[in-house]
Amino acid sequence: MGEFELLSRIRDRLARPGPRIQLGSGDDAAIVVPGGATATSVDALLDGVHFRREWSSQAQIGAKALAAALSDLAAMGAEPGEAYVVLGVPTDLDEDGCMELLGGMARVAGETGTTLAGGDVTRAPVLTLAVTVVGHAERAEDLVTRSGARPGDALVVTGALGGAAAGLLLLEQLSASDIDPTPGGSISDALLGRQLKPVARLAAGRTLADAGAGAMIDLSDGLGGDARHIASASGVALRIEVAALPIASGVAEVAAAAGRDPLRLAVSGGEDYELLATLPPDRLDAATAAVEKQSGVALTRIGEVAAGEGVEIRLPDGALLEATGFDQLG
Amino acid sequence: MGEFELLSRIRDRLARPGPRIQLGSGDDAAIVVPGGATATSVDALLDGVHFRREWSSQAQIGAKALAAALSDLAAMGAEPGEAYVVLGVPTDLDEDGCMELLGGMARVAGETGTTLAGGDVTRAPVLTLAVTVVGHAERAEDLVTRSGARPGDALVVTGALGGAAAGLLLLEQLSASDIDPTPGGSISDALLGRQLKPVARLAAGRTLADAGAGAMIDLSDGLGGDARHIASASGVALRIEVAALPIASGVAEVAAAAGRDPLRLAVSGGEDYELLATLPPDRLDAATAAVEKQSGVALTRIGEVAAGEGVEIRLPDGALLEATGFDQLG
Repeated sequence: MGEFELLSRIRDRLARPGPRIQLGSGDDAAIVVPGGATATSVDALLDGVHFRREWSSQAQIGAKALAAALSDLAAMGAEPGEAYVVLGVPTDLDEDGCMELLGGMARVAGETGTTLAGGDVTRAPVLTLAVTVVGHAERAEDLVTRSGARPGDALVVTGALGGAAAGLLLLEQLSASDIDPTPGGSISDALLGRQLKPVARLAAGRTLADAGAGAMIDLSDGLGGDARHIASASGVALRIEVAALPIASGVAEVAAAAGRDPLRLAVSGGEDYELLATLPPDRLDAATAAVEKQSGVALTRIGEVAAGEGVEIRLPDGALLEATGFDQLG
Repeated sequence: MGEFELLSRIRDRLARPGPRIQLGSGDDAAIVVPGGATATSVDALLDGVHFRREWSSQAQIGAKALAAALSDLAAMGAEPGEAYVVLGVPTDLDEDGCMELLGGMARVAGETGTTLAGGDVTRAPVLTLAVTVVGHAERAEDLVTRSGARPGDALVVTGALGGAAAGLLLLEQLSASDIDPTPGGSISDALLGRQLKPVARLAAGRTLADAGAGAMIDLSDGLGGDARHIASASGVALRIEVAALPIASGVAEVAAAAGRDPLRLAVSGGEDYELLATLPPDRLDAATAAVEKQSGVALTRIGEVAAGEGVEIRLPDGALLEATGFDQLG
């Protein structure tokens, strides 16, 4: 069965095609009339590298793959448009499993206004997803790159950090009962949710773009590593105060149970999919209010942009905490 | 090492970014200002499913992955624009191997005017490629879908058929010495080239679109199966005369050596990446001349479009040859 038939089977769960789509899945290519600038990004997720099938339902895996891809569009301040999905299917995943996975993806597509516009289905040794997303903006200048940070800018982050990394520790080393006294406790639930059910900060990204963000990136690899990408692309130094970081609820408990430093977890842990952005200081208050109003997400000032290069992450006592990103390939 | 660093290392072999590219690889997303309509398609190729590493150099694998993806743009009559590449790297492929693979892809990109605008690199159990290509046209109506075939149209095909399937037989069941009396003979070379080094018929596709093609598809699964896609999408019957098929040189010899029917090989063999199109009869002569002039490829009338549904493939004696496409997933 091809991708067209699979998508047909979940057609009633698909978002209405966006106004730009002239022709969706089922031909040699989808036809879109963008009408302005596009932002295009591709993300691959493989079982055993980016997720584990035993940790998640098929629907969660499909939803996470699309959310992770859309997070790159959030970091550009783009409006989600179309997604194109490669699904590599191992022999032990049947058609119903594929349907469940695409159903999870279709749910996120519907919630975000993304059209699943095409794809390819093939056999693969392990469950493999590659999602290409195309976002839109009226003009190329409306999109926020990593290279627009300027000395004197404020450095801000959406939401809270470390939750996804703490969720990963719960899955890999600990169990929920190490943290929550009662089964299904809310702390472990929230942290597992951050790891298994990430959300792309699309509304916050567009609001930050409108509010004048100079540079923006999504935190997929970890604050330390992703901050370096902005510093390098912009030719500036980023100074981050650990005392200012918004740490997700429960990270301290998980870190204590695992014998880890909660601050390092928040700095180096990946997959939070929060946004790190720079703002001229005179835009900070308006941006903070607008992000909270438009998306219900807190915006926290965690440092500043200075002349120089690289990233400095300072502990409350002024000592330098070494920033560590994931070194894994990709 | 991430995709950005890999692409940086082959930067001098990359095509100059097209005029629509505002920002290429290295940020959260590439920024493009399309200016008209886009055609977007994604193709996945995995070792053991779509190719075998022992048959090809890394450069050939990279080149084939991009050519196969671009073939879908050829079938729309689109001008190639950008490509986004997922590279899943097994442990036994080192960085130089990745570079060689991307170098082969960069060569095809350069030859076709395609910009490698982004990607993702990850670990994978087997070599995995997923290529998203975006093509452009001034207007959506300029792109040729599968659904515009009308009764009375002529059915035409570019180039010659069966060569890729014969090349596959040489790799899987026979050896070149079964066909060519001398080593490195030209017949086996040409057939192996059709299998391992396919070319997307981009110029022919644009010429056919300009010449008024009603429906078009690229022959990736085989003539029989791909003809059914046009018949189904257009709601018509396609009548194909086997006697009219342009059979690639050497197919008869390979079929004889393998005990296969050369006509069935030409009808059901995939991966020729030729174009199958429908044309109003009064456009046929001009289109044939234009395709030959613009792309040096022959255009052959192989049948006609009729009212009805499905595909009829008739042998020279009038008997019906059952059309058989690949039934593999995807």
